[in-house]
Amino acid sequence: MSSNALFADLYEFTMLRAYLELGMTEQATFSLFVRRLPPKRNFLIACGLANLLNEIENLRFDGEQIDYLGSLKIFSSAFLDWLQGFRFSGDIHAMREGTPFFENEPILEVIAPIAEAQLIETLVLNQIGLQTILSSKAARIVAAARGRVVIDFGARRAQGLDAATIGARAFFVGGVASTSNVAAGKAYGLPVAGTMAHSFVEACASEAEAFRVFSEVFPETTLLVDTYDTIEGVKKVIALARMRGEGFKVRAIRLDSGDLDKLSREARQMLDEAGLNDVQIIASGGLDEARIDALTARDAPIDIFGVGTDMAVSSDAPALDIAYKLTEYAGVGRMKLSTGKRSLPGRKQVFRQFRDGFATGDVIARAGENLPSIALLRPVMLAGRRVASEAFELSQIHAHAEEALAALPSKLRTLQSHKSLYDVVISRQLSDYERLTRERLSR
Amino acid sequence: MSSNALFADLYEFTMLRAYLELGMTEQATFSLFVRRLPPKRNFLIACGLANLLNEIENLRFDGEQIDYLGSLKIFSSAFLDWLQGFRFSGDIHAMREGTPFFENEPILEVIAPIAEAQLIETLVLNQIGLQTILSSKAARIVAAARGRVVIDFGARRAQGLDAATIGARAFFVGGVASTSNVAAGKAYGLPVAGTMAHSFVEACASEAEAFRVFSEVFPETTLLVDTYDTIEGVKKVIALARMRGEGFKVRAIRLDSGDLDKLSREARQMLDEAGLNDVQIIASGGLDEARIDALTARDAPIDIFGVGTDMAVSSDAPALDIAYKLTEYAGVGRMKLSTGKRSLPGRKQVFRQFRDGFATGDVIARAGENLPSIALLRPVMLAGRRVASEAFELSQIHAHAEEALAALPSKLRTLQSHKSLYDVVISRQLSDYERLTRERLSR
Repeated sequence: MSSNALFADLYEFTMLRAYLELGMTEQATFSLFVRRLPPKRNFLIACGLANLLNEIENLRFDGEQIDYLGSLKIFSSAFLDWLQGFRFSGDIHAMREGTPFFENEPILEVIAPIAEAQLIETLVLNQIGLQTILSSKAARIVAAARGRVVIDFGARRAQGLDAATIGARAFFVGGVASTSNVAAGKAYGLPVAGTMAHSFVEACASEAEAFRVFSEVFPETTLLVDTYDTIEGVKKVIALARMRGEGFKVRAIRLDSGDLDKLSREARQMLDEAGLNDVQIIASGGLDEARIDALTARDAPIDIFGVGTDMAVSSDAPALDIAYKLTEYAGVGRMKLSTGKRSLPGRKQVFRQFRDGFATGDVIARAGENLPSIALLRPVMLAGRRVASEAFELSQIHAHAEEALAALPSKLRTLQSHKSLYDVVISRQLSDYERLTRERLSR
Repeated sequence: MSSNALFADLYEFTMLRAYLELGMTEQATFSLFVRRLPPKRNFLIACGLANLLNEIENLRFDGEQIDYLGSLKIFSSAFLDWLQGFRFSGDIHAMREGTPFFENEPILEVIAPIAEAQLIETLVLNQIGLQTILSSKAARIVAAARGRVVIDFGARRAQGLDAATIGARAFFVGGVASTSNVAAGKAYGLPVAGTMAHSFVEACASEAEAFRVFSEVFPETTLLVDTYDTIEGVKKVIALARMRGEGFKVRAIRLDSGDLDKLSREARQMLDEAGLNDVQIIASGGLDEARIDALTARDAPIDIFGVGTDMAVSSDAPALDIAYKLTEYAGVGRMKLSTGKRSLPGRKQVFRQFRDGFATGDVIARAGENLPSIALLRPVMLAGRRVASEAFELSQIHAHAEEALAALPSKLRTLQSHKSLYDVVISRQLSDYERLTRERLSR
């Protein structure tokens, strides 16, 4: 199987050829950061590093890929030979996956000969961008669920196969309990969940028959009750329970349409009156964090939320203003001056300050500064090799995210916008360096 | 390389086991349709069929996948044995890729033993959904460009690697000329485009130096002029042209920030006054169809638009209300009755009516009806094998889309909402059948 070495904008390759022919082989630093948080995000959660490092460590060009580039008639054979031997040999410093971060903070820095650092640009942006969007969205859904379980039902609506699969991983980092996507379950060892669809109910002679036969095959299943009429469906579950007696093991019913607040209360009351207090209620169907928040705020008796489309594509913020920018070349700070887009020159570090266990603010500083707080950027790849002690199990990443989120001011974890409650400042040294670099370039 | 056979919601597998153990092996029909167009879409463009059929034809479970399913402890060994021998053996009827379609119209029907048709649900929704969203978004961008060239710059912002790569294909179907994504260029034979980034300019000693050396390596390149100050950048291009004289072959400049209307006019005038009338202007940076429409409506002198984020994720409509529903089982019509969601029972056909070469409206009918107009659903897979005469080259799909779009009422191709201008009606036979099915199920 060929690597994703060609997953790059064409200009990466044209610039590479130019760098090499012009002898521009010095070390560069590129910084990955989000310029501006989406309107409804108080923070984002860094995610996607493990997959990215794996891609970078294994980035190779095979013969077919080289031939394709050759066919474009814009690359010299010397350049194609160089690509054939390509290995990423640089260093990468990054925030741990699961770390919340804020505007303009570098979440990853690549320090490598400029051609190498340039080549991976498109891959870095795409991979970290996607998982960061999705884990950050999931955290909002999970917050809105107020302790109830959230399941990912999004595979069918995600933007492609890998969005669905690495997305399920990102949702888990953001606090989601399980996924319906079997491929993701296998790929990442995630818990998988799921039961029956309307098609099963419709294919049977009747809804009562469907419930009876499905629960014979899967005694501890969930029954979907809204195919024809939700309340009638609940009655059929209760009738089945009466018929089966002790043999009734069904764990839950699922509501997938209608007024979920009203229907969940009616269903709960009916189940309780029938002595089925242990049968849980799962709700799904067009749920987003606002709808879930409304349901949990009124304490609708829903135990589990199945969330699809809205989480799968992060529908209110499907892309990030994420950038991968040259900040240093040959030891000299670099930056763009054009309109309205700030980019901080040089290698950097992000320090998070804590008081009584709570994060109180961040300082973006120059690399090498030593502030009395936690440095968030850590070496994760050195000379092209992953740092073993920075390779975490997914369960560790999940736990880290949970802990780091719990340490944020609690208002940041609500659905309302409270960006101003968290200070991100630029250190004196960095802001001096930014000014000096700007002056040098404006001359 | 293992197939995407596990790319399915867990409930597909639980239902499959139930179908098999219960002897439910009759033929089913599932219909794929979009319940409601996104607010700003007058139509959608069917896309993604070729990839989907390829996946379905090659769907196999390997030993590792079977072992994984076994590890979940919910599947019998008889069922796992059955999966091991799985081949899709059914028929698929679908609209040609590139065909515009409307609400509630089936764009694809799967006719197969119910287990087979059920298993592919998640894959069908994901794959057709993604490409349809993206080709439909691209058509809006292309319409707004009013004949100017559009290039896909979205790889870095797409939701994953396959979204970027099959997305580039979908954009091409929607009328986009080329892509910056090299992997997509190779995968689908798409024209690739791209030149230089700010990082190259910043890494050089000065902008003038960057332009000089880059155009030595690539004489016919595009120069990015907005790294420090756009107008100063244009002056440097002109100075380079003076210095090079006849040797100056630069084809274009690119503006990536600021007021593109104003800057393009100033740049055009400066270039023209310098005799550089052939140097084109490319604009990029946060463009969507509304911004492009505003620029072309005022006739800003921009020759080429590079469009990234907004097209890459279809930011105003990142997901579709797309459904894959059982409509017939064992020869009997099936449908859901629950709230507000219509699903038309039985096998169907969509007829498009034309007058003077223009499409005037569609009729959704029962399969087997014969209306004096063009039937849009065609057999594309029979007994698990693709129909060779329905396998089109991408260039043919592109041409078909162009022609089919040109045949729509012209107002539908503007950015404004004009859904009411196109009639989609349900045939008498189908509406009778819907009523009878509903009555039968409500009894």
